[in-house]
Amino acid sequence: MTPVTINTFVNQKEPHLVSNELATISFGEYIFRRLLSTGTKSVFGVPGDFNLSLLEYLYAPSVESAGLKWIGTCNELNAAYAADGYSRYSNNIGCLVTTFGVGELSALNGVAGSFAENVKVLHIVGVAKSIDSRSDNFRDRNMHHLVPQLHGSNFKGPNHKVYHDMVKDRVACSVAYLEDIETACDQVDNVIRDIYKYSKPGYIFVPADFADMSVTCENLINVPHISQQDCITYPSQIQLFDILDRITSWMYSSKTPAILGDVLTDRYGVSEILNKLIYATGIWNFSTVMGKSVIDEANPKYMGQYNGKEGLRQVYEHFESCDLVLHFGVDINEINNGHYTFTYKPNAKIIQFHPNYIRFVDTKYGHEQMFEGINFAPVLMELYKGIDVSRLSLQYDSGVTSYTNETMQLEDPTNDQSNNITQVHLQKVMPKFLSPGDVVVCETGSFQFSVRDFAFPTQLKYISQGFFLSIGMALPAALGVGIAMQDFPNAHISDENIGEGYKPRLILFEGDGAAQMTIQELSTILKCHITIDIFIWNNNGYTIERAIMGPTRAYNDVMSWKWTKLLEAFGDFDRKHTNSTVIEYPSKLAMKLEELKSSNTRDGIELVEVKLGVLDFPEQLKCMVDAAALKRNKK
Amino acid sequence: MTPVTINTFVNQKEPHLVSNELATISFGEYIFRRLLSTGTKSVFGVPGDFNLSLLEYLYAPSVESAGLKWIGTCNELNAAYAADGYSRYSNNIGCLVTTFGVGELSALNGVAGSFAENVKVLHIVGVAKSIDSRSDNFRDRNMHHLVPQLHGSNFKGPNHKVYHDMVKDRVACSVAYLEDIETACDQVDNVIRDIYKYSKPGYIFVPADFADMSVTCENLINVPHISQQDCITYPSQIQLFDILDRITSWMYSSKTPAILGDVLTDRYGVSEILNKLIYATGIWNFSTVMGKSVIDEANPKYMGQYNGKEGLRQVYEHFESCDLVLHFGVDINEINNGHYTFTYKPNAKIIQFHPNYIRFVDTKYGHEQMFEGINFAPVLMELYKGIDVSRLSLQYDSGVTSYTNETMQLEDPTNDQSNNITQVHLQKVMPKFLSPGDVVVCETGSFQFSVRDFAFPTQLKYISQGFFLSIGMALPAALGVGIAMQDFPNAHISDENIGEGYKPRLILFEGDGAAQMTIQELSTILKCHITIDIFIWNNNGYTIERAIMGPTRAYNDVMSWKWTKLLEAFGDFDRKHTNSTVIEYPSKLAMKLEELKSSNTRDGIELVEVKLGVLDFPEQLKCMVDAAALKRNKK
Repeated sequence: MTPVTINTFVNQKEPHLVSNELATISFGEYIFRRLLSTGTKSVFGVPGDFNLSLLEYLYAPSVESAGLKWIGTCNELNAAYAADGYSRYSNNIGCLVTTFGVGELSALNGVAGSFAENVKVLHIVGVAKSIDSRSDNFRDRNMHHLVPQLHGSNFKGPNHKVYHDMVKDRVACSVAYLEDIETACDQVDNVIRDIYKYSKPGYIFVPADFADMSVTCENLINVPHISQQDCITYPSQIQLFDILDRITSWMYSSKTPAILGDVLTDRYGVSEILNKLIYATGIWNFSTVMGKSVIDEANPKYMGQYNGKEGLRQVYEHFESCDLVLHFGVDINEINNGHYTFTYKPNAKIIQFHPNYIRFVDTKYGHEQMFEGINFAPVLMELYKGIDVSRLSLQYDSGVTSYTNETMQLEDPTNDQSNNITQVHLQKVMPKFLSPGDVVVCETGSFQFSVRDFAFPTQLKYISQGFFLSIGMALPAALGVGIAMQDFPNAHISDENIGEGYKPRLILFEGDGAAQMTIQELSTILKCHITIDIFIWNNNGYTIERAIMGPTRAYNDVMSWKWTKLLEAFGDFDRKHTNSTVIEYPSKLAMKLEELKSSNTRDGIELVEVKLGVLDFPEQLKCMVDAAALKRNKK
Repeated sequence: MTPVTINTFVNQKEPHLVSNELATISFGEYIFRRLLSTGTKSVFGVPGDFNLSLLEYLYAPSVESAGLKWIGTCNELNAAYAADGYSRYSNNIGCLVTTFGVGELSALNGVAGSFAENVKVLHIVGVAKSIDSRSDNFRDRNMHHLVPQLHGSNFKGPNHKVYHDMVKDRVACSVAYLEDIETACDQVDNVIRDIYKYSKPGYIFVPADFADMSVTCENLINVPHISQQDCITYPSQIQLFDILDRITSWMYSSKTPAILGDVLTDRYGVSEILNKLIYATGIWNFSTVMGKSVIDEANPKYMGQYNGKEGLRQVYEHFESCDLVLHFGVDINEINNGHYTFTYKPNAKIIQFHPNYIRFVDTKYGHEQMFEGINFAPVLMELYKGIDVSRLSLQYDSGVTSYTNETMQLEDPTNDQSNNITQVHLQKVMPKFLSPGDVVVCETGSFQFSVRDFAFPTQLKYISQGFFLSIGMALPAALGVGIAMQDFPNAHISDENIGEGYKPRLILFEGDGAAQMTIQELSTILKCHITIDIFIWNNNGYTIERAIMGPTRAYNDVMSWKWTKLLEAFGDFDRKHTNSTVIEYPSKLAMKLEELKSSNTRDGIELVEVKLGVLDFPEQLKCMVDAAALKRNKK
């Protein structure tokens, strides 16, 4: 086959497409075009000797002109967190590129978090040239970045797949260590399809010599776009009819149905449909911890966040009064299920909607039926289209009003009568600070337990690692979210009216102990011109751990920092793009929140350090700690 | 058995010892006492809910009074790097404590580096209570920090050993996931013995409920101390006689023997003996890249660093003139062996000394003999004791003088005639800045390739990740080294005269791109009152990568920082403990170096940012890149 000049085949409208399948391109170019064809527009990572040949293709004309951006982060863990945030916001694939060993291993905890929380991340790892891992000349050589064998390493070469073997079947839904250029494009496509199908991370290990090798454009022509919808499993018409019939018959015969909006609804891109169903039917609805903001919490039938016995009592009672629960995007773990304390009204019926099954449970008769291998997303879409609202016979207690921020019955566990800012005070003032369409990223920590019970304004997107709970994740994740907001402006807003006259803001709630873990990424946030309001809750250490054990132990202390100096050190030398403030009193906080809210069009970074009590944590965290029996057993 | 109050049994001189083996203590206390009994005095890490019950035993009277220190780092990767540095300096076990999943995975890259470079690190991971991982009630529960199964996770519990399975047999020489309190103490002891034996990292996974459980003191009484010497394999008397006979007969018949001091000599604590052998015999000696500073480079027969064809030509020629090579602590990999370009004089004899073998190679006859399962350390000790120096018949070329800093034939690849500070300039002035007894930590990067050819002053200890090459490692490693220097003052100095009148300094050479990866640990260096001089080579990005590819690509750029503001932000609010300077010209650098050297008794942190050219890298790096064929192949 004669290689042809590729530019003549470039589709001007979609430069990543080509119109001649005999055309060949370099494999490095293929990877980035394939990524573009899935909708991704930015790539995170850190250069390293084994990925440089691949990174060069960021500058291939077809890639560069399609606008694929390189977002270099300060380290690889932060790249993984950022890619995760990018995907959580955009529902596209978040991609990071690292190098063999030193890079990929540093990123691993971020990828594991994406796996645990069903986030679509593609981790591309540049590895040794295929000739090094395969040829007789090289395979006995201990290469840098590659761990030698424990025994006999001076006589025996390393296992080039050692890191591959670590992640495969553990923190990735799909893994390809490329060894044959002939099948490499197909393998890339397969990993991408799996990432969309499972909504979990995938890995591609790319030998450094593959980037420059030629491959055909066949796949890009035959399948010019890959979307999540192309990758999930659909029910047959007969199955669909059967399933919908059961769902609607249960709904029509229910007097007090409930919709529970869980996290996988978001991951499979059907939150908007679910909200339409809610508005159309007027069914009571609840969010879960991990599904927070899947449901538009401003809807008139929003009844609060349900978390079994760990949630607010009133929400629990309302949920337990429902005779049918439609649990969309169900993901079961101890955090999302209040340490397995979910309970239902006696004789209630439950339908669980999952990416791999629809499950009907009739608790009255102890019956259950599973439809396996079917993704719930198309079922939900058909349900919305097919439901006859007039046949619903809702009979909720008319005395019950929907959940609002005022519903939070907050006691001050510290009984703080001073003029300090307490968690209880934050629960009062922070919900009002939020506006429709805002994007809130929240760090794992004590404040996160407050936010659970906020009633968010309409169209607000909430992003937090609710289950894996890796502190330090939120700040780099906010970088990824900010980049995604640049790439897909207002993508989270379905109500067109919101965008007008208001610029949705990115807001980060961050703890001091957590912030210290990954603080350098503030610098990249600055470099990338991301507009963000950052609240640093400064309580002098790991207050979430103090709630569990060692309240006054030194191991829970962190070093005191001058937070307001950081942005100057990290690149805003003349302080033109950032503003930093320390807040110690409620009155000053009120003024600051008012100022920020009224200057909605401002750009740049606003960093607000809020001083809190060392031992002040929200009541909700206390409940969780008690429920989880995390406290030390008395001897 | 009736539990007894432990304090009555505490040995006042050595509080970690007890004198009654029927006494019981809590397992958490056992772990820390066992660690103390190996010589370790500080523990690095980050608290997390699964390790808090263990960390509480840092405050057990017997542990606290023995002086075990907790060094909380900003994140877990940095804890791993610090533990690595602690061990490299002290030759004791560097210990880090992290929590299940989120903590341990973040630390993994640091541990992998310790594995690749034979560093004694103990990674203690707090995991779920044993009841959670074993009982029928709990095992189906998806716990936070633990990744769910890929398939069926809503119906099937997680694999509690998933992270254990990742590291076992890959980046650890010994791994124990504790499940039975009856055998837990023995398992701890076994992992510690393996760490010393292999000089590689080990893991202990400690269930959160184990810390409070009672165990007997039997092991602590029967084996009150564990040292590396207790853990290695000794030859039998017959083997030893046979081996020494062969070594000495080869030495006595050699005219031009060479000693090559390699890294494992340091890891098995016999560098001092090797230097005594060198001084006693007057044999020509060379260092390797990873063994840099194993040999006292001020000795009159030091001939430079040998790195095959990647090293300096003169050193190569001298090495190739030797008819016998005694290679102590041999570790073979592409960096340490100049991409496998080691060559020997025709018909030369070679003896390799390794922790698991002594190998005799006679290239003249193609003979080779291996004594396997024998550690070289006792062999070296006996060799030093037994050698009859009068029987040596050294006949080196009398015209050859030893290696000094003047030997470096440096060309300026940039031909920089300006008044900028170049790498060549640094190679001229920095060696003179170093003093006998200093401890130098050097980051992976372009400057590291210059340091290879420095002739260090006597008793200088050099610490650098020479093979795994994970950038960002050096700054947190310097924290660990600084703590170890506090715990074991002047432990690296065998010549008592050095200590007098001079306070050995800790000096860190750090690149800007690398520093950004792990910068927050500056804060812990400050918190721990470590005295250190930090040179930040600011060349605006990843110059080591630019040398390979993409010299002007944006992916090799990093954000510009105001380095001199960092220490103020990180805790030195009134700048009493730190001093920061920017240096742009050679004259100013000369003044600064003179100032630092003449004020030897000062405490605190001195941060010197030195501005370098973006594309200026040492000739040695160019040679390595060329040899490794890392540059892109022309198509």
